[in-house]
Amino acid sequence: MLQWLKTYRKEFLAGDVGAGVIVAMMMIPQGMAYALVAGLPPVAGLYASIVPPLLYALFGSSSTQSVGPMAIISLMTASALAPLAPAGSALYVTLAGQLALLAGVVLLACGLLRIGFLANFFSRPVMNGFTLGSSLLIALGQAGTLLGGAPLHPHLPSAALGVGAVAFLLLARRWLAPLLRRAGVKPAAADIGARLAPMLLVLGSIALVALLHLDARGVQTIGRVPAGLPHLNLAQSAQHWQALLKPALLIGFVSFLVAMSGAQALALKRAEKLHTNRELVALGAANVGSALSGGFPVTGSLSRSAVNFAAGANTQLAGIVTALLLSCALVLPTGWLALLPLPVLAATIIVAVLGMLEWNTLRTSWRYDRADALALLATAGGVLLLGVEAGVVLGLMLSLGAMIWRESRPHIALLGRIHGTEHFRNVERYAVETDIRVLMLRVDAGLFFGNAEAVNERIEDELAAHPAARHLVLVFSAVNAIDTSALFGLIELNQTLGQRGVELHLAEVKGPVMDRLRDSVLPERLSGRIFLSTANAWDALVLHDR
Amino acid sequence: MLQWLKTYRKEFLAGDVGAGVIVAMMMIPQGMAYALVAGLPPVAGLYASIVPPLLYALFGSSSTQSVGPMAIISLMTASALAPLAPAGSALYVTLAGQLALLAGVVLLACGLLRIGFLANFFSRPVMNGFTLGSSLLIALGQAGTLLGGAPLHPHLPSAALGVGAVAFLLLARRWLAPLLRRAGVKPAAADIGARLAPMLLVLGSIALVALLHLDARGVQTIGRVPAGLPHLNLAQSAQHWQALLKPALLIGFVSFLVAMSGAQALALKRAEKLHTNRELVALGAANVGSALSGGFPVTGSLSRSAVNFAAGANTQLAGIVTALLLSCALVLPTGWLALLPLPVLAATIIVAVLGMLEWNTLRTSWRYDRADALALLATAGGVLLLGVEAGVVLGLMLSLGAMIWRESRPHIALLGRIHGTEHFRNVERYAVETDIRVLMLRVDAGLFFGNAEAVNERIEDELAAHPAARHLVLVFSAVNAIDTSALFGLIELNQTLGQRGVELHLAEVKGPVMDRLRDSVLPERLSGRIFLSTANAWDALVLHDR
Repeated sequence: MLQWLKTYRKEFLAGDVGAGVIVAMMMIPQGMAYALVAGLPPVAGLYASIVPPLLYALFGSSSTQSVGPMAIISLMTASALAPLAPAGSALYVTLAGQLALLAGVVLLACGLLRIGFLANFFSRPVMNGFTLGSSLLIALGQAGTLLGGAPLHPHLPSAALGVGAVAFLLLARRWLAPLLRRAGVKPAAADIGARLAPMLLVLGSIALVALLHLDARGVQTIGRVPAGLPHLNLAQSAQHWQALLKPALLIGFVSFLVAMSGAQALALKRAEKLHTNRELVALGAANVGSALSGGFPVTGSLSRSAVNFAAGANTQLAGIVTALLLSCALVLPTGWLALLPLPVLAATIIVAVLGMLEWNTLRTSWRYDRADALALLATAGGVLLLGVEAGVVLGLMLSLGAMIWRESRPHIALLGRIHGTEHFRNVERYAVETDIRVLMLRVDAGLFFGNAEAVNERIEDELAAHPAARHLVLVFSAVNAIDTSALFGLIELNQTLGQRGVELHLAEVKGPVMDRLRDSVLPERLSGRIFLSTANAWDALVLHDR
Repeated sequence: MLQWLKTYRKEFLAGDVGAGVIVAMMMIPQGMAYALVAGLPPVAGLYASIVPPLLYALFGSSSTQSVGPMAIISLMTASALAPLAPAGSALYVTLAGQLALLAGVVLLACGLLRIGFLANFFSRPVMNGFTLGSSLLIALGQAGTLLGGAPLHPHLPSAALGVGAVAFLLLARRWLAPLLRRAGVKPAAADIGARLAPMLLVLGSIALVALLHLDARGVQTIGRVPAGLPHLNLAQSAQHWQALLKPALLIGFVSFLVAMSGAQALALKRAEKLHTNRELVALGAANVGSALSGGFPVTGSLSRSAVNFAAGANTQLAGIVTALLLSCALVLPTGWLALLPLPVLAATIIVAVLGMLEWNTLRTSWRYDRADALALLATAGGVLLLGVEAGVVLGLMLSLGAMIWRESRPHIALLGRIHGTEHFRNVERYAVETDIRVLMLRVDAGLFFGNAEAVNERIEDELAAHPAARHLVLVFSAVNAIDTSALFGLIELNQTLGQRGVELHLAEVKGPVMDRLRDSVLPERLSGRIFLSTANAWDALVLHDR
């Protein structure tokens, strides 16, 4: 907590303040836009951008993470709340806060229980497919707002404004940085300047609405933004807590995945160390803080964090600067924001989420591992066709299914002796000598419930292929652990082999594994012996027996 | 399919017919009792005992598996149907058939997709905890029927009959086999004879009710059993299919686990090979058959299969004999069954499920691996407090959590050279020489999304501990596979290490892994080299560089 403050140096200040200002400029349009995606009044997006970064600065371990509203989490919020209340209603706003509170408590609990390893649930292709599907779903969801009506019946002034905004943002992304560079701005500064195009667009479109009275011509604007800081907004409605629990678990899980994958990419570049469990606590605190200050579920945003990083943020102070600037924006008169046209906000959303599309993972995995590519496409399709929650569950199942499939096929080698040596190798790869009465199998994986069955099956196959075998030696040189399920498997294997006249021996059992086995009945019940080395087993069972 | 028929020998016949008759004698009370647990009319239990074993004999690979009603699956059926229809109603009966049909289709699909490895989802302690919780829940659920009323307000004649039946069954289990042995019966036959106590009790209690007119004194009996074989009983009610889908998935999963764990224990004793995917198909067909013949979800029952095994069943013919006998019982006049008192059926249920309790797993895992013991208790508690469906999900989460935790901590060794040799070993275990500019790490696990993060973290730690390092050699001698997530991890690691002036090298990449890597951009982007052996890497980076 505040570790960065103890080692703070004066030289950090310029970078932190500069980055804080730039991220605040990105945060204003993004926060309002993502509130819109979540079905909330735009001002909720500003609220959710103040307390969360402050709390993250207090607890988080990434120096550049920018915590606040984020597109996919907003989509999940909308999908969780849609069945419970009409979008934008007072109940809806309260439920959004409750959802953030629950998600925050889930994240805090995971952090305090130190189960951050759960982030390893999602494979990269599945995560990419999830992002892909969600981005398209968000973009499709904004089409109506962009055009001011159904695609075939657009409201022309709104559609002109919206499509114009999309064109401006796309052109700015492509050409603004090169233009600034040609105008003599330093490359890094030019890149960051180009990131402020959405804020420029917001200001420009407000001016345009004011000048042309577009609001009177039917262009929807965000309307009055209540000035002042948010007040506590978490009324009791006990009957909804239960309905929110499952979405809160999924949102907590996804927000952790999103935040970690972004922060880790940046941390690697600076050789900075992230603490998984501290990140969970920090994200949990940020969500609880968002709930208590009129916000909704938040997480780290890769696009803002990357700008924060590029703009020279040295410590979490940059996030504090961002939060202070946003609260200033709310305390100052906010009347000017009322004229911001919704089609322009929709345009910033669409361009932002289409910018998250990344096809390299699909291309690479299609060439490298077709199954991973299909998992990616299935997850994306699941999100698009079944919705974002079903998409998370589908992604989880595909990732875990892949893990279990992998685990259920451990590598097992039948061993033989390299003539005249004490070396034992796979019979399929080396010219080795074997004995028809002695089977030696090396299992190259820890034994546990996920592969116990596969090990048994391989043993049965080898015994069937070598009917003269009277000794089975399991070489445990690569077995780092044996869980309770596998322990029972060994005890039963020993018993059934005994009934069939085959002795079971172990060899090269590692120290820690042997210590554990001594607490069990296996050593005393074992029909055979426990050899220190494979060579000892060979000497005793093959040579002395000749 | 019918493989056993091709190799059938005359000598098998006596054992098969004898076992078939004995299992049928067990099946009659068990089938009716488990139908009661499922909330169905007792005759449904007899229907569910005819077609399923026939279909299992057609497709299954275990010679001794007895397929039919089973306590836990009946409990899950009751729990799935309770919110949808009043127990025993015509709709309830139809829904039970639909549930069996869906579960059967799920099992068939898993078998045809060859994803039987999914059975490796549950760890043994979790399975034991699930059985424990379910057994207690079933026993508690039967207490009212046993006593003919609430525990504090029992119906005295019913309670006397029920408690008397429990006492008889417990005494029979403890003393009948020894008594028969003392009377000169062979030990094996005596053990099997003792298993027929429930059937004896059924017949005795019917006689008692008839003699004492207990039904007129308020003892509930099963009532008229419609004679004749069942007719198709699967009316359309499309609106319920969706509600049944999730329970059907869970029931399919649990019935597969239950059937496999029982069959495998018996198969090992005979060195018989079970085919996981064929078992899935056979169980799926059995459930579809049960649905089409007035039954409900079924699975293999360990208690009956063990008797079938002990009574000398040689092939699946024993199951066919059982099915034929049960259909005869239905064709013959069934009026006598009407007087069977419910408290006696409840007694057979309670004694049967309490017989499934097994404390050895808890005792062993408590000593061997406390975490596994706690998972067992948590699953049992989950079933008791949250219900059987929540229990399955909790068990899944605990098993998978354990797997992911295990996977997220791969063994990684920092290597050094044993002086004067070409052998490289863990610096923590051997006296080896190292070079401060060259870090060599051996990863003892396949690289995939579940451990990619842990590998990165270890690399960061080692680089922080060895700031002079300019080369990182990853020794892949134990890496059997690299998935897409880990491939991306390596590409990014290579890039970020490059920015920090550290070259990344690989050594001892296995043939199949190298073949896959060649399809990726890693080899061309790698800042360092790919060495055939660790010794080559040492020579090039340490010796030639001196």
